[in-house]
Amino acid sequence: MTEDQLLDLLRQNQSGFISGGEMSHKLGISRTAIWKHIEHLRKLGYEIEAQPHQGYRLVSIPDRLIPEEIRFGLNTRWMGQKIVSYEETASTNDVAAKLAVQGMPEGTVVFAESQSKGRGRLGRAWVSPKGKSILMSVIFRPKLLPNQASQITLMSAVAAAKAVEKETGITSQIKWPNDILIEGKKIAGILTEMQAETDQIRYLIVGIGMNVNVPKEALPENATSIHIETGDMGQGTGDRIRLAQELLRQLERGYDLLHDGQWETVCQEWQERSILTGKQVNVRCMERQIEGTVTGLDPDGSLLIRLDHGLTERVMAGDVVAVR
Amino acid sequence: MTEDQLLDLLRQNQSGFISGGEMSHKLGISRTAIWKHIEHLRKLGYEIEAQPHQGYRLVSIPDRLIPEEIRFGLNTRWMGQKIVSYEETASTNDVAAKLAVQGMPEGTVVFAESQSKGRGRLGRAWVSPKGKSILMSVIFRPKLLPNQASQITLMSAVAAAKAVEKETGITSQIKWPNDILIEGKKIAGILTEMQAETDQIRYLIVGIGMNVNVPKEALPENATSIHIETGDMGQGTGDRIRLAQELLRQLERGYDLLHDGQWETVCQEWQERSILTGKQVNVRCMERQIEGTVTGLDPDGSLLIRLDHGLTERVMAGDVVAVR
Repeated sequence: MTEDQLLDLLRQNQSGFISGGEMSHKLGISRTAIWKHIEHLRKLGYEIEAQPHQGYRLVSIPDRLIPEEIRFGLNTRWMGQKIVSYEETASTNDVAAKLAVQGMPEGTVVFAESQSKGRGRLGRAWVSPKGKSILMSVIFRPKLLPNQASQITLMSAVAAAKAVEKETGITSQIKWPNDILIEGKKIAGILTEMQAETDQIRYLIVGIGMNVNVPKEALPENATSIHIETGDMGQGTGDRIRLAQELLRQLERGYDLLHDGQWETVCQEWQERSILTGKQVNVRCMERQIEGTVTGLDPDGSLLIRLDHGLTERVMAGDVVAVR
Repeated sequence: MTEDQLLDLLRQNQSGFISGGEMSHKLGISRTAIWKHIEHLRKLGYEIEAQPHQGYRLVSIPDRLIPEEIRFGLNTRWMGQKIVSYEETASTNDVAAKLAVQGMPEGTVVFAESQSKGRGRLGRAWVSPKGKSILMSVIFRPKLLPNQASQITLMSAVAAAKAVEKETGITSQIKWPNDILIEGKKIAGILTEMQAETDQIRYLIVGIGMNVNVPKEALPENATSIHIETGDMGQGTGDRIRLAQELLRQLERGYDLLHDGQWETVCQEWQERSILTGKQVNVRCMERQIEGTVTGLDPDGSLLIRLDHGLTERVMAGDVVAVR
């Protein structure tokens, strides 16, 4: 963490220069070590000016979701204590699953600037141009049964919606089970995957893809991005980082709520944003087709649909289309 | 599969010799090729006598769960079409999971003579001396939701019980969710593990460990083996193979039943063998403790327990102890 401390010194002295000697003294490492860390930070994309007799000055930070930036001001208790970042990887969910198998703790987060095999629910592709989205996966080890895993998906949807709202001031909606929308257009998606015994979840990965600075022409018609919706946010260096940090904070909060048995709170926050509640919908679930009105959410995370003849069905999976 | 055909020729001529020339002619391969296959079979443990001017004679088969023997007379439609065998591996479930990720089809089976990290439910160790058990794992890709995965576990318990009964003539019992008992002592255990999205099982592995020729002194007090129970079965070459084949046949049958929507049939076969039904039990489930009388099985695979004040609880997971 010496490098984090060195970065902090540079941040605190951004208006002027700080000498190698002073940093060496404050961090208790040699001037050669200081120089090596500076070189490493430059490789990560930090622009650091060096002037003879004056020292170093932080000119700009990289627009990348790297541990050095995510950790700075994160202020979480356990979420994001371990962060792994990739320029490109096949799928952050796959990386997170591997790390989970290796025993990495709950709250470990994987970021990538781009994915070569990103995917959404039911094996669908998730494509996003490099460096313009938040692509992240979090390891959880919930003390839940496999059939309660939906609670984590729904909690994550609330966390993503709240993070968007907090950072942009724009109201967002949730489309069951795992899409976050602004004005009916998809801004983020969630893919939950787990490894489980019949009666125990071994680990669970929540993958979140959020369009931050993706231009209109790179998106399907029913999708949008933070930049498109806000007009100014998204393009600035640090915007993705702040959003990602807020996501991690909201995920920590939501998971702690579930852990404390406060599913009702999460459920209510979900309901407030549910775009389908009260709507007439058509659901394709496995090989069945259901039509009815969405009435709410079951404690197990399934969608409650009142059929036209009055009975209520619980839908655990499937594609929901609002018909009116 | 030339080697399987060559083995068949040797099996058909076990009373005498069959010449290299005849085999070469029948199989349409060179005598050098015949010789190479013979050498390979010997390496697998087949004892094959060779006499100048007479040819080859199969003296004995190896007492190992290898594809060459499992496939012979298996007569399944899809189960065990791919078989992988190990002398030793960490865990057959882990190997099967890797193969599933690589795309190996449903019904692929992994056998091992011994496991260095065998495990049972909830991460408990499963230890068995080399070459004296059936240690196998099967890949399934059921079109079920994760919360229906228990159906596969229960079906597998029925399959294991029926295989024991068919091969030994001894009645066996099932202790929910996954233990097979003879006279109250454990003869086999099942570990189901899955990789799933919230609304789709990607693959599911059923691991079965069955004590075949394990001596009393190598078993815990509450366990037994086929050999101990039958007195004669289990020690003979081929006994493990026949049991493993019957297991595969029963798994195919049970899975086909579930696939055809005949959960009721499986459920009934399970109930007939359930050692807990009607018993007063104590269940530790997550952090709760439940006491009551077992009344049966729910379609989702959970155990139904009537509490003393009359309400019925569904138990999805946990350790059940019969108190009287």
